[in-house]
Amino acid sequence: MHSVWITLLLFCPAIVFTGNVLVFPVDGSHWVNMKIIVEELHSRGHSISVVRTTDSWYIKEHSPFYTAITLNMESGFDEGFITVFISKLLEIQRNGRSSWARFKLEMEQMEAASIMHKKGSQLIEQMFDDKHLMESLRDAKFDMVLTDPVILTGVMVARHLDLPLVFNVRWTCHGEGHFSIAPSPLSYVPVPGTELSDRMSFRERVLNIFAYCFSQFTLAHYVTPYYDGLMQKYFSQDSFMSLFQRADLWLMRIDFVFEFPRPTMPNVIYMGGFQCKPAKPLPQHLEDFVQSSGEHGVIVMSLGTFIASLPQEVSEEIAAAFAKLPQKVIWRHKGEPPASLGNNTLLVDWMPQNDLLGHAKTKVFVAHGGTNGVQEAIYHGVPILGLPLVFDQHDNLFKIKYRGAGKILNIFTINSESFLQGIEEVIHEPSYKMNMERLSRLHRDLPMKPLDHAIFWIEYIIRNKGAAHLRSESYTMPWYSYHSVDVILLLLGVALIMLLTFVVLVKTLCFCVCRGIKRKRD
Amino acid sequence: MHSVWITLLLFCPAIVFTGNVLVFPVDGSHWVNMKIIVEELHSRGHSISVVRTTDSWYIKEHSPFYTAITLNMESGFDEGFITVFISKLLEIQRNGRSSWARFKLEMEQMEAASIMHKKGSQLIEQMFDDKHLMESLRDAKFDMVLTDPVILTGVMVARHLDLPLVFNVRWTCHGEGHFSIAPSPLSYVPVPGTELSDRMSFRERVLNIFAYCFSQFTLAHYVTPYYDGLMQKYFSQDSFMSLFQRADLWLMRIDFVFEFPRPTMPNVIYMGGFQCKPAKPLPQHLEDFVQSSGEHGVIVMSLGTFIASLPQEVSEEIAAAFAKLPQKVIWRHKGEPPASLGNNTLLVDWMPQNDLLGHAKTKVFVAHGGTNGVQEAIYHGVPILGLPLVFDQHDNLFKIKYRGAGKILNIFTINSESFLQGIEEVIHEPSYKMNMERLSRLHRDLPMKPLDHAIFWIEYIIRNKGAAHLRSESYTMPWYSYHSVDVILLLLGVALIMLLTFVVLVKTLCFCVCRGIKRKRD
Repeated sequence: MHSVWITLLLFCPAIVFTGNVLVFPVDGSHWVNMKIIVEELHSRGHSISVVRTTDSWYIKEHSPFYTAITLNMESGFDEGFITVFISKLLEIQRNGRSSWARFKLEMEQMEAASIMHKKGSQLIEQMFDDKHLMESLRDAKFDMVLTDPVILTGVMVARHLDLPLVFNVRWTCHGEGHFSIAPSPLSYVPVPGTELSDRMSFRERVLNIFAYCFSQFTLAHYVTPYYDGLMQKYFSQDSFMSLFQRADLWLMRIDFVFEFPRPTMPNVIYMGGFQCKPAKPLPQHLEDFVQSSGEHGVIVMSLGTFIASLPQEVSEEIAAAFAKLPQKVIWRHKGEPPASLGNNTLLVDWMPQNDLLGHAKTKVFVAHGGTNGVQEAIYHGVPILGLPLVFDQHDNLFKIKYRGAGKILNIFTINSESFLQGIEEVIHEPSYKMNMERLSRLHRDLPMKPLDHAIFWIEYIIRNKGAAHLRSESYTMPWYSYHSVDVILLLLGVALIMLLTFVVLVKTLCFCVCRGIKRKRD
Repeated sequence: MHSVWITLLLFCPAIVFTGNVLVFPVDGSHWVNMKIIVEELHSRGHSISVVRTTDSWYIKEHSPFYTAITLNMESGFDEGFITVFISKLLEIQRNGRSSWARFKLEMEQMEAASIMHKKGSQLIEQMFDDKHLMESLRDAKFDMVLTDPVILTGVMVARHLDLPLVFNVRWTCHGEGHFSIAPSPLSYVPVPGTELSDRMSFRERVLNIFAYCFSQFTLAHYVTPYYDGLMQKYFSQDSFMSLFQRADLWLMRIDFVFEFPRPTMPNVIYMGGFQCKPAKPLPQHLEDFVQSSGEHGVIVMSLGTFIASLPQEVSEEIAAAFAKLPQKVIWRHKGEPPASLGNNTLLVDWMPQNDLLGHAKTKVFVAHGGTNGVQEAIYHGVPILGLPLVFDQHDNLFKIKYRGAGKILNIFTINSESFLQGIEEVIHEPSYKMNMERLSRLHRDLPMKPLDHAIFWIEYIIRNKGAAHLRSESYTMPWYSYHSVDVILLLLGVALIMLLTFVVLVKTLCFCVCRGIKRKRD
């Protein structure tokens, strides 16, 4: 028996290195991303505990992949308000109301989103006050915390328990993740939401700086105030930003086929497209439908989780346009089927999106521009007709358009003709397909699959108990030291003193000489 | 026959992707690094042409790995002056002469080194004027240029022929490579040569800024002037720096086990330790000698290529110290054997350094601190007793000392006792070994071997005809735009105008009100 164990230990090094991982996910579509990593970690023998709240939408209590730690609290996560916000936004735009109305609505939405932080901070406080819970987390001897830092729970618990911290990240609660750790010159690093590239005109650079200032304002106004109490009580040594900056590893859900080149740090690992995989065969009825398109091929349309049902008049315009096409259409659509629906269009509640995008007959993807959908389209080389709505969707699609791999239409103003024209352009103008295929080639040309890469680095953190040697500790410096303001002031001071001394010397000299001349004259 | 070719093409994708690479190496120890990559590329079926001059020291005309393109010109590369410089330096220090003498000597050395740039620029001009040569380079249809950018030849030829450019790099002619492309805040990125870490005191940060200014001065004084003519004649569109910044890929000969964490860019690939490999068995006589050390183990000493022979009195002190040790010593030594040599010390002309460092009996490496030796010591986990002399050696060894994996002695002032004490400390204090083994573990914990990683990315450049999407084009901006000076001036201007308008308005208002009151009174 003894030798069996030795053999196991020798030939199954994976068993020796398996870790105990505490996961703090964000509910909703973010969980879709986290789940992939959780399942992969589980398949490699790691033990996973996922923290969820009783009101969780997506994160199930029972799973073969993880043990749930269910908190009898409210997460504050509310997908409802996003749906309501989108409906209001559509209404404002369709009715041609003023920009002021839109601005007001967006401010309202920001206010509503900030509630998430209020509830989030309450949740953290409740957790920290629950001595029994914190004791059990401590006793579980986790190797690391894996979290999505849109919400701070995982970040603060990791700090509290002094555990290595890994992010599954693109956004933090204060914007795009890179801005927190990499020096990002605003002259060529566009602020998210601006729809700018890394090559900006003077006007665009002015806009970019304004956008940055605005993002700092929203952070100071809608986010940090909710955490002030917590910071004082538990983290008086830390600044709000430093809680993020001390993460050992940032697993970024992008790559540089999607993102514009920008400065990065040694502890940022790019795993863009980690969720992508080769297409599996379609269910028979879908395969039959797709094959029936013949040489014309198929159009796939999905506007993501939040916007399954569009206002009826928008759906009608789109359906009417689809009906005029020789292609077949598969449309993820909820609600009343449009009256103008053609025979060539199949409405579905849910679709195997990855398998459809990977199908040889798929010609174009009509999408809202969520990161996952865009990454899947890049992976499979399918050009995009974009109908962005909110959040980062405009920016994501702008990046695709900038590379000539897609076209953007305004969902608020489209009609049957403009939509038809747009979709025909993407299908028939070969540059869209060619450019997307180029992106796809570049995206797949990696030494390692993105998911394997991400898992390697998570296991690295487990094996090495963090990665302090990859993390810059510059965040522990006060801002004036980080920007060398103190040194510059010293040098300026010295220069000033030298100048003054010089001036005084010259004056004294002049005075003496003048007096000498005067005496001589006298 | 036809089907055989199809089979070959289908199953040997490597054949399809092999490239035609033009290599511009730097002679001397830098060639040792480049040769490893050239041989590896050759073994993967790529066709390599290496440019050399008739006076080349290391780069042979005939090689099974590459075709030499021999230029009937002088490279300007002169190892002799380095050897002379080191001897003079040793003499100054041993005789306890003033710091001023040392400073003067270092300035002389800088002047001498600048001759290399003078000759280098002449070599480029000669090449460009040789229509036949340039035509043949053009006709050869190279896929990319691989070069070591300490000398500009490859950089300028790549620009002239408009070819993708890959660097095998740590230094460029204007200092550490990162400073050319990654935003490097001087508050936590130490300037090479300062022996500073990423955590600096106020005094150290002042020093770091001075060091940076000095490096800019030497660049402007000893390097760029030699290229002014060339720049005007051939590259009037480019700035000197932009020639480097347009490189597609920077294969950096470091990693973050060695380097302190600092900002980086997406087109920087770290291949530190790419030259390291498991130890091969030693030749029988060496193995016998090593084994004869018993439990005490072996000390390996080498001061690199340039300093095979030390001044006799230094050698005597070191030999006398070695003679008192129970360990066996293998010392790479040229010149007269020291009279104080013990029986336990074997002098050799050349040694299989990697195999010796990888031997289980090796206890300590006495080294000058060249990057290659330090990387090999990290790879094999052997602590270092450092005797730095010139260039980056002080800095390299400082990094090892900072991590507790080695000790530094001043070769200019050591005597038998201090050397003995130092070496006994490194052997008997277990933290040195433990820390170096930790570095070794971290260094080896990579998803891919550094050399394979480097080759993957070279082949990536061949396959994709460059990597423009990984390269920031920010270098094409004028400095005031890069640093947003123009935007800041505009915003300040607007603020000033607003302030002035406000002041004028208030004054006018006051004036009107006052006049009104006055009239009322009157």
